[in-house]
Amino acid sequence: MESCMDRIKRDIENIAIITATPQKGSTRFSYSDEDRRAREYLFKEMEKLNLEIKVDGAGNIRAKYAHGNESLPSVILGSHIDTVANGGKFDGVTGVISALELIRVIKEKKVQLKRPLELIVFAEEEGSNFGITMLGSKILTGKFSLKDLKNIKTYDGITGYDVMSNFGLDVDSIGRDVLKRNDVAAMIELHVEQGGILDLEDTPIGIVKSIAGMRTYKISLKGVSNHAGTTPMYLRKDPMAGASEIISYLEEAAKEHALPTTVGTVGKILCKPNMPNVISGEVNFYVDIRDVDPQGIEKVADALLNKTNEVAKKRGLTSSVELIGESDSVKLSSKIIEAIESSAIEENYKYKIMNSGAVHDSAMLTNFTDVGMIFVPSIGGLSHCPEERTNYEDIKLGCDLLIHAVIKLANE
Amino acid sequence: MESCMDRIKRDIENIAIITATPQKGSTRFSYSDEDRRAREYLFKEMEKLNLEIKVDGAGNIRAKYAHGNESLPSVILGSHIDTVANGGKFDGVTGVISALELIRVIKEKKVQLKRPLELIVFAEEEGSNFGITMLGSKILTGKFSLKDLKNIKTYDGITGYDVMSNFGLDVDSIGRDVLKRNDVAAMIELHVEQGGILDLEDTPIGIVKSIAGMRTYKISLKGVSNHAGTTPMYLRKDPMAGASEIISYLEEAAKEHALPTTVGTVGKILCKPNMPNVISGEVNFYVDIRDVDPQGIEKVADALLNKTNEVAKKRGLTSSVELIGESDSVKLSSKIIEAIESSAIEENYKYKIMNSGAVHDSAMLTNFTDVGMIFVPSIGGLSHCPEERTNYEDIKLGCDLLIHAVIKLANE
Repeated sequence: MESCMDRIKRDIENIAIITATPQKGSTRFSYSDEDRRAREYLFKEMEKLNLEIKVDGAGNIRAKYAHGNESLPSVILGSHIDTVANGGKFDGVTGVISALELIRVIKEKKVQLKRPLELIVFAEEEGSNFGITMLGSKILTGKFSLKDLKNIKTYDGITGYDVMSNFGLDVDSIGRDVLKRNDVAAMIELHVEQGGILDLEDTPIGIVKSIAGMRTYKISLKGVSNHAGTTPMYLRKDPMAGASEIISYLEEAAKEHALPTTVGTVGKILCKPNMPNVISGEVNFYVDIRDVDPQGIEKVADALLNKTNEVAKKRGLTSSVELIGESDSVKLSSKIIEAIESSAIEENYKYKIMNSGAVHDSAMLTNFTDVGMIFVPSIGGLSHCPEERTNYEDIKLGCDLLIHAVIKLANE
Repeated sequence: MESCMDRIKRDIENIAIITATPQKGSTRFSYSDEDRRAREYLFKEMEKLNLEIKVDGAGNIRAKYAHGNESLPSVILGSHIDTVANGGKFDGVTGVISALELIRVIKEKKVQLKRPLELIVFAEEEGSNFGITMLGSKILTGKFSLKDLKNIKTYDGITGYDVMSNFGLDVDSIGRDVLKRNDVAAMIELHVEQGGILDLEDTPIGIVKSIAGMRTYKISLKGVSNHAGTTPMYLRKDPMAGASEIISYLEEAAKEHALPTTVGTVGKILCKPNMPNVISGEVNFYVDIRDVDPQGIEKVADALLNKTNEVAKKRGLTSSVELIGESDSVKLSSKIIEAIESSAIEENYKYKIMNSGAVHDSAMLTNFTDVGMIFVPSIGGLSHCPEERTNYEDIKLGCDLLIHAVIKLANE
């Protein structure tokens, strides 16, 4: 008979092969063909457990294990199955599969629970389509409206509304169909750490106390496109030179003028017309700033906006700065932290109470209910890349703790 | 009856509408469907003049006006019809159409010439497919071999050999079919200036004395792709931050550590995976350095290579620098400069003897024969962009001078 670990491994590996970039990591954007195939896999597994499955207008999968207690608020479990481009196979999927395994174990062992469980597979967590992270959980919790959805676009210019409609979703139900505070008793998400602390300290379990807040800005610089050979240096209005100056300054600001916990990244840049022998006319780039302390974000964002104005003025460029995503840093529930910690102590698992540098869907539910997170180690701290790895032994330990904590919370 | 200017305008406008980017400038890459349609237009015009048309293995069109003197070396006229992405309608096309009009006028007026004329439409001048400029003229003059062609690739990974074969060319004839020194008596190219000097000085004609040399480098920086939220600043190996530092330095080096004539540009950058919330793993960018004085190029190139090594070492990145294109600065023929200048004086046209910051196909023929170039003004100095403009009155003046100079050279 398969062990829990065998089943977890089988599920994660089966989903990993559903990728648009075989041999080059997991590329499984929400609303893509790969997403559809991964969903079909999950639906089959959920049907084996007789879960009641519902898919909302944004593509969030809500699968309920009700066992006759439908009327009580649920304990929510969940994470996501979408990825960045050329990402890893553990980010998100590990939490979804651990939650699925939890329900299998509860059913097999006929564990009695007072409250229903609900496994939610959040759509579009990574922001790969529209540059907006946690879109599914934002929509589910009413933080992002149907109207907003009509105003966002993919890099190819297709609206959020159309992308979701084309995927066959009942997009117009968004807004009517949001999560209600009274339906939720608690939420726990298991996730890979995506940083190197647990691996470095040889600790299999992280219990998250705060999740970093983030802001994503899109900065656009427009200058004058011209021939690279015939325009003297002093006559140029070159947005690429301006972008370089700002990107270099962002690194300095995050390193030296903020807090030790602050990070700032430019991971995406688009240059037009993007030809070696043409001075570019327009450069757009995205700035991601994060910190568990809002002051760190504030400092770097202020410095960035000032620098952008200064650079544009000095170089005769037109600049625009658009805040395209924002989430506040949040403290997780001390009640859930204690529930997980006491289980870890009972089971004698080594653990660390820590912050999360990454934002997660769970953070969207903190104003609805008590929220907790369990981390398992990312080997070498690598994530969002094909080399992302977590030992299945560690996932098994994380899943054990999840089971213990959920049994407590669902019987309160 | 149509005037010369009417015919020139009609031809240029008819070719301008053959673009992959309607309303957004001319995008007509060599070996594309747009290229094929523009060629068909030219073939029809050439057939009306009974030119002997031959297309070589690289796609260079060679159209001869022989009038019974096939055995003597030809005076070559020509330029190109390919463009950068979202470029202008005058770059290249103006020279091709002026040469075509020249042959029309010579035939109509039954001007007697001792030597044959040859109109060459050079393929792939802009380097839009492979990042290598003047590929057609390099191949025609034996500077780029069949073997080299098998080693270059489009950004989509298709070899030069395959791109040309797929276009229906007899690529294997390359090398056997190069230009021979004894076949050529002289070459003149008319081209738009692509800089702002003639327009600023209200002068309709430039007579080129030197063409800038250039080098194009591809710089690749590899680091460690990771999650933008969970990796502290001090643990990053971020190639985008490294690229920004090098791009900023390139500008400083070209402005302050070289010559007043030196220019350096980064017009193309590619970031992988190019996601806002992922520290990039690899950034590739292209550096274009030009000067009429080889010392200027040397200084900036040396500084760039040193800086790249320093940045890679300091940041724990892997760097590679590849020289993907190079042409020496060249002095044009004083005999042809004098022929054009004396015609300008006879016609009482205002002119300026000047340098070319841009490299042109003509530069590839300077070790074969006497080469000259006529410039006409670019309004506002704009080129390689949809706003590129030249007054048709100025093109007409340039074409007049071309006719006068060619009549002299073809009767020597």
